[in-house]
Amino acid sequence: MKPYPRVVIVGAGFGGLQTAQSLAEKGVEVLLIDRHNYHTFIPLLYQVATAQLAPEQVAVPIRTLLRKAKNLYFLQAEVQQIDFPAKEIKTDRKTLIYDYLVLATGSKSNFFDVRGAEKYAFRLKTLNQAIKLRNHLLRCFEQATLVSDNAQREQLLTIAIVGGGATGVELAGSLVELITNSLQRDFQQLNPQEVKLLLVQKSDRLFTEFPRSLGNYTAKKLRRLGVKVLLDSRVITVSADGLELDDGTFIAAATVIWAVGVSGAIPKCFPFPTTGKQRKVKVSPTLQLANYPEVFAIGDLAHVPSHKSLSGVAPEALQQGVYVARAIVKQLQGKRIKPFSYFNKGRLAIIGCYAGIGQIAGVNLRGFLPWLFWLTVHLIYFPDWRNRLMITLTWLHNYLIGDRPVRLILSDPKSASIERTVPLEIKN
Amino acid sequence: MKPYPRVVIVGAGFGGLQTAQSLAEKGVEVLLIDRHNYHTFIPLLYQVATAQLAPEQVAVPIRTLLRKAKNLYFLQAEVQQIDFPAKEIKTDRKTLIYDYLVLATGSKSNFFDVRGAEKYAFRLKTLNQAIKLRNHLLRCFEQATLVSDNAQREQLLTIAIVGGGATGVELAGSLVELITNSLQRDFQQLNPQEVKLLLVQKSDRLFTEFPRSLGNYTAKKLRRLGVKVLLDSRVITVSADGLELDDGTFIAAATVIWAVGVSGAIPKCFPFPTTGKQRKVKVSPTLQLANYPEVFAIGDLAHVPSHKSLSGVAPEALQQGVYVARAIVKQLQGKRIKPFSYFNKGRLAIIGCYAGIGQIAGVNLRGFLPWLFWLTVHLIYFPDWRNRLMITLTWLHNYLIGDRPVRLILSDPKSASIERTVPLEIKN
Repeated sequence: MKPYPRVVIVGAGFGGLQTAQSLAEKGVEVLLIDRHNYHTFIPLLYQVATAQLAPEQVAVPIRTLLRKAKNLYFLQAEVQQIDFPAKEIKTDRKTLIYDYLVLATGSKSNFFDVRGAEKYAFRLKTLNQAIKLRNHLLRCFEQATLVSDNAQREQLLTIAIVGGGATGVELAGSLVELITNSLQRDFQQLNPQEVKLLLVQKSDRLFTEFPRSLGNYTAKKLRRLGVKVLLDSRVITVSADGLELDDGTFIAAATVIWAVGVSGAIPKCFPFPTTGKQRKVKVSPTLQLANYPEVFAIGDLAHVPSHKSLSGVAPEALQQGVYVARAIVKQLQGKRIKPFSYFNKGRLAIIGCYAGIGQIAGVNLRGFLPWLFWLTVHLIYFPDWRNRLMITLTWLHNYLIGDRPVRLILSDPKSASIERTVPLEIKN
Repeated sequence: MKPYPRVVIVGAGFGGLQTAQSLAEKGVEVLLIDRHNYHTFIPLLYQVATAQLAPEQVAVPIRTLLRKAKNLYFLQAEVQQIDFPAKEIKTDRKTLIYDYLVLATGSKSNFFDVRGAEKYAFRLKTLNQAIKLRNHLLRCFEQATLVSDNAQREQLLTIAIVGGGATGVELAGSLVELITNSLQRDFQQLNPQEVKLLLVQKSDRLFTEFPRSLGNYTAKKLRRLGVKVLLDSRVITVSADGLELDDGTFIAAATVIWAVGVSGAIPKCFPFPTTGKQRKVKVSPTLQLANYPEVFAIGDLAHVPSHKSLSGVAPEALQQGVYVARAIVKQLQGKRIKPFSYFNKGRLAIIGCYAGIGQIAGVNLRGFLPWLFWLTVHLIYFPDWRNRLMITLTWLHNYLIGDRPVRLILSDPKSASIERTVPLEIKN
């Protein structure tokens, strides 16, 4: 019944999908488990939230990505429990025995116990969250056209982003594009001056993982684009009306986006201790769990003590996926595994409005070139040629014609989240 | 405050949108009201439900379609009451005074009091309904891979379509394409013979609005594609498990799609009598309401007694939109209005799998030519060139490579509707 050793992979993000694809036709039976039936290309989620790309353009059905190889299977399910000594994984659909287990469940937002953040802030880790944010932003604009009270209207048109890392910065830049390219043309009744974009960063600069000069460049660029960049600012409370900073300032904002803090998406009932605040799974230099050499953890979920520099970007998860696939094949052949080592090809970050930053081979880049690099690299890494073509066309349309065509409020009218913020106005 | 006469249009479907666009720069202030912020290209909804097109490809933000003209405004709202003598329209957002009112709210599904139909059958009148159907169909397939009981699995893989008109036939054909092109490749564990497609039609032929020979051709074509076409069959009950026919047959099906019956989507608290079963608004030959010459009703909502042949297709609504815009301008100039007359350019219907039917200038068409005509005509009528390009590319991909790339189950996992049908199976 089980002719080949069975590798179960939990999570079809960059790491899990790569592991599966690297195990194609490799003499093992691979079962990839994910709660969704699609792989989400997370780096482009912010473009879904800002109506640049359609949700379908950044997601690919997992079965399509696996169907070329005969030994790759998919199960849409949620993991409920793992019995490590018995090598048994229980999901809400099926219970399975594995020979090898690869945990690649990624990360989720970490709210650091900031009051109200989990309840009121929008986040950007899943496709559904991106669609929810898009719906909300567009609803705020629709609503603002109806409100005659100035303070209320300003609140509706204020968007506060918490976190000055990659997600926060790219969201800020992309929102500037959305507002100046499209919304100002669509909402001619509104005064563009009333739209306020804030970026709140607790450190004294943006992009702490890049050299200070690039962080400063980013802040300057965003400020020139009209974004209010608040450095050395901590958020104390998030509420339905806005947020409160540690210096006592209250910012009235209908939209607060949580773009900071990542913690490991630890599977339910995980029996081993995790690392401090980030709640990641500690693994050996060979990415294995202590005492369970048949279990690997990779990507955002894993904490590799020997690699302090890992920072949760896609290339790390991809390289770990390739590594784990090889490690499993080697174990089966009775060979020894060398520790995982990460080859850093450089880093890029996009600001938007034709600007980006980067560090490649020790050289600092800023401006148009890293912006173009960023888009090109993400196109190349996209796992499906059809979406790649659609994204290219959409970007050409976005940047040549300067429009954002995907401005649909696509949800049940009942789930409208904005009514809670601002009372409705009836006027003649 | 009101320099121009104000025309309020309710509903941004084919009729309402066309009225607004025909009134661009015409010396009136036009306010288009819709509950969604996008125009839905309804003829292509079935392709969204069958994972051929992305929802964003068949919907266009209304503000984008209106923004070129300075006198066209948009309000996202739901109509709550209309005070015809006072010329006042109350929505959930705003109350407005109008000089002219155009009712273009379209139609909704008519269940003819069939037991359980409204609760258990899927329908295809809105974008959300199409997405819901897509999610459900794909979930049934995922679920079927987990079920070892033959009867249960067959139920999951049985899709029953009620109604042998355009929607029912195009859905049947498109489902054949989805299953043979994509799902069979994605779900290799499943036996294609277990997938069952049924089309239930109460009349003795399909496409009653076309000559009998074309209806017979369609039935023959669908049967050759593996669809079970049941003529002279009436549905008595729809339940969570399937449907019951008037001859007592019970068909176990996890998916029942209601593709028959249209009734006018009468605005809330509409004070005038409507036509019998179809609940449409009776209008004069000039599409005006009796006693209220400033109120027009068009499209699927309107019943024009002088035009018995109108059958609820887009060209009728579009021509009525153009007519009403002209009628309003003429009224303002004090000129008389001639009755509306519909110019029938011919009719086309698509079956799928490279076949269609049509009747143009009295000539009956069948096969590949009307299939290609249908696609071309719908591309031409699409109101936005960007989506037109995207749809063309997607179709080329669909038909040249034979794949359906939009197979995402894109919804809150909580809202999964299928669990109710089939108990979950836990196996080792």
